[in-house]
Amino acid sequence: MNTINIGLIGFGTIGSGVVATLNQNINLIEEKVHKNVRLKRIVDLDITTDRGVEVNQEILSTNVEDILEDDEIDIVIELVGGYQPALSFILKAMENGKHVVTANKALLAKHWQEIINCATKNQVRVCFEASVGGGIPLLAPLNDGLAANNIEKVYGIINGTANYILTKMADAELDFDVVLKEAQLMGYAEQDPTFDIEGHDTAQKLIILGMLSFGIYVEQDKFHVEGITKITPDDIKFAREELNSVVKLLAIAQVDDECELEIRVHPTLVPQNHLLASVNDVFNAVYMVGDIVGPVLMYGQGAGMMPTASAVVADCIDIIQDMERPVDYGPSQGRVKKIKEMSNVESKYYMRITALDKTGVLHSISGILSDHNISIESVSQKKADHGEAIPIFMVTHHSLEKNMQKAIQLIDKLDFVKEETLIIRLL
Amino acid sequence: MNTINIGLIGFGTIGSGVVATLNQNINLIEEKVHKNVRLKRIVDLDITTDRGVEVNQEILSTNVEDILEDDEIDIVIELVGGYQPALSFILKAMENGKHVVTANKALLAKHWQEIINCATKNQVRVCFEASVGGGIPLLAPLNDGLAANNIEKVYGIINGTANYILTKMADAELDFDVVLKEAQLMGYAEQDPTFDIEGHDTAQKLIILGMLSFGIYVEQDKFHVEGITKITPDDIKFAREELNSVVKLLAIAQVDDECELEIRVHPTLVPQNHLLASVNDVFNAVYMVGDIVGPVLMYGQGAGMMPTASAVVADCIDIIQDMERPVDYGPSQGRVKKIKEMSNVESKYYMRITALDKTGVLHSISGILSDHNISIESVSQKKADHGEAIPIFMVTHHSLEKNMQKAIQLIDKLDFVKEETLIIRLL
Repeated sequence: MNTINIGLIGFGTIGSGVVATLNQNINLIEEKVHKNVRLKRIVDLDITTDRGVEVNQEILSTNVEDILEDDEIDIVIELVGGYQPALSFILKAMENGKHVVTANKALLAKHWQEIINCATKNQVRVCFEASVGGGIPLLAPLNDGLAANNIEKVYGIINGTANYILTKMADAELDFDVVLKEAQLMGYAEQDPTFDIEGHDTAQKLIILGMLSFGIYVEQDKFHVEGITKITPDDIKFAREELNSVVKLLAIAQVDDECELEIRVHPTLVPQNHLLASVNDVFNAVYMVGDIVGPVLMYGQGAGMMPTASAVVADCIDIIQDMERPVDYGPSQGRVKKIKEMSNVESKYYMRITALDKTGVLHSISGILSDHNISIESVSQKKADHGEAIPIFMVTHHSLEKNMQKAIQLIDKLDFVKEETLIIRLL
Repeated sequence: MNTINIGLIGFGTIGSGVVATLNQNINLIEEKVHKNVRLKRIVDLDITTDRGVEVNQEILSTNVEDILEDDEIDIVIELVGGYQPALSFILKAMENGKHVVTANKALLAKHWQEIINCATKNQVRVCFEASVGGGIPLLAPLNDGLAANNIEKVYGIINGTANYILTKMADAELDFDVVLKEAQLMGYAEQDPTFDIEGHDTAQKLIILGMLSFGIYVEQDKFHVEGITKITPDDIKFAREELNSVVKLLAIAQVDDECELEIRVHPTLVPQNHLLASVNDVFNAVYMVGDIVGPVLMYGQGAGMMPTASAVVADCIDIIQDMERPVDYGPSQGRVKKIKEMSNVESKYYMRITALDKTGVLHSISGILSDHNISIESVSQKKADHGEAIPIFMVTHHSLEKNMQKAIQLIDKLDFVKEETLIIRLL
């Protein structure tokens, strides 16, 4: 049996998980690939802190060239994160004929073409199952298991922090800020949570899903990305009681009948009977529809040390089993003709308008909506003490986003409207 | 670009779906594999009936040798079903150096070792993604995506007919027989539904899942298989109202701390907050737990012409992309030390005992349970007119199956017990 040598760059949480996984299941893995598998080198700036995993001290190095320039190393695992120097490491590794495994969604979302081109040119594989959905087998099933399909829709709950917060807000009827603090204490949210709660992390993962599903690369600032910070317990309660729905931060990519691609990230009302509505806490799931297979859903832990390590090591195993597999990432000529502007997206809307309880309020609001071709499916307003601002909940029929945006602008200028109007699109 | 030739044996529903899929998406497929893909021959006893799919009449034949002996054919798709002549066709194809794709779960469940040995000996691949969970990418993710994991648990809803019946019984509070008839009218159940409703189909699929997850082949008559025919709307109602659970026909395989494998098929009470509880109608899902990744679930359509064809064609694509992949089916030396006898399985139980409403009834029953070391968690009994038999619902704490079986035997002999006692195990 010959030996496959792996080099690991980045000995943080996920890196430690990779080492723990290899320690725990090396026999299983070697039996599977019929080769010896050796973690030959770990490079990190910090090689002294105890990571709580058993590791041969002799393989630790602070010099990345010990991996990139070692001809014996077949596979480089990049877990440095961020753009640089991670990008340079990956490109250099591939130029030196090494296959690459990475969990670096930010890097892939930004430098997709450069990375894929480099892999193709050097005839090595770059695998990134861990970059979307953590431990869930997701990208391989999409690429391979659904290979006979044109993908029509992809709906993902792919940020555990946001999903945890929305779940807890619903369960405990608590405000966003309260739950965020709790999530930070429990380690489910970063001290600066912007990236997760404003949808940026979800957007990066959606770019990768979009490539593999539709063969279309869309830059992150080219599509609508909206976070969950404005959602209140009132919205969640109304959704549950009146619409039998839950609020989820969804990544959405779908092709319509005119072959236009909708791609967007925003809070979405998901009907209770949709499987995505049952994806709670830090769990992730991606719901896909193929033209042959119909709907398919994959569910599991989208982050965390061991789940993410599971995907990283699975990628290594896949590469070892199949070093010669042609490098191929998504359909090169999908059916997509153009990317739809957000303003042309159609949706049903939930609206929360906060207004004084005065005569003529509903009349003015419904007038504006009607002027913008938005028809109201239902409206609900609670009694209030005179002079107090109260929420008016509305649900519209299918309407155009640009009309809705114009209508909201006008509504929010009405003098009896006291807060910014919130909309949540319905799935 | 060279050409890959495929031979299809069996031009029934799934076979027609395969032809339709190739017709619809051949460009996508050929682009993916960088080869020409040609359906060179279709063999069936009936080559005259119109299947409603476009097919070149010249490739139709009634002689299976036209496929098995054609040196140009690289991949044979077997969709004949049943044991013979399907087994002979598959073995002959492999002996002639052809890779095989099959959806034939019955054949795999019975002749697993013979088929795998033949593939290994001839260094060809045999792929069977469609045999479990229809179109859901399931076996490849289990083999590859979770390759770094020891699998600890597999729970599957893998029979669409049974799941449809249980879903409708719950939604409409209808009796089993009524729903079965409706399912037959709608084509969701066979005229002889035994195979689906008695759990045999689920058991065959579980054998395949067991092999891939634990490396253990268990013959079908060596484990407990129980169908759904005795479930009543009363059971479903009690489960919902008192236990916040639903009744699902589950395939269960799991390894306990002593490395003993539990493998069984029976109706199971699944808590509402478990994702499997939301798998309704004809949909299938498999929930797996790996020692590294934790829980993962795959969901989709477990049967039907196009979903199943999606998996069959995906297998062909996988083979074309990777003809040289070492033939490898599940861990060869799993952690499993022995297969646990059903009598030694422990579970919580729901019991429905139908008895006359007389003094001392509960006293007698609870005495028997206590004698068998079964402690009662809750009991519920409705008032009845004197002399009428009424159901008594009980939920037990964890108890041994053999004790429960002995207790039921004695309970059912009590003269005031008027029907066979039904048990449903809790997940």
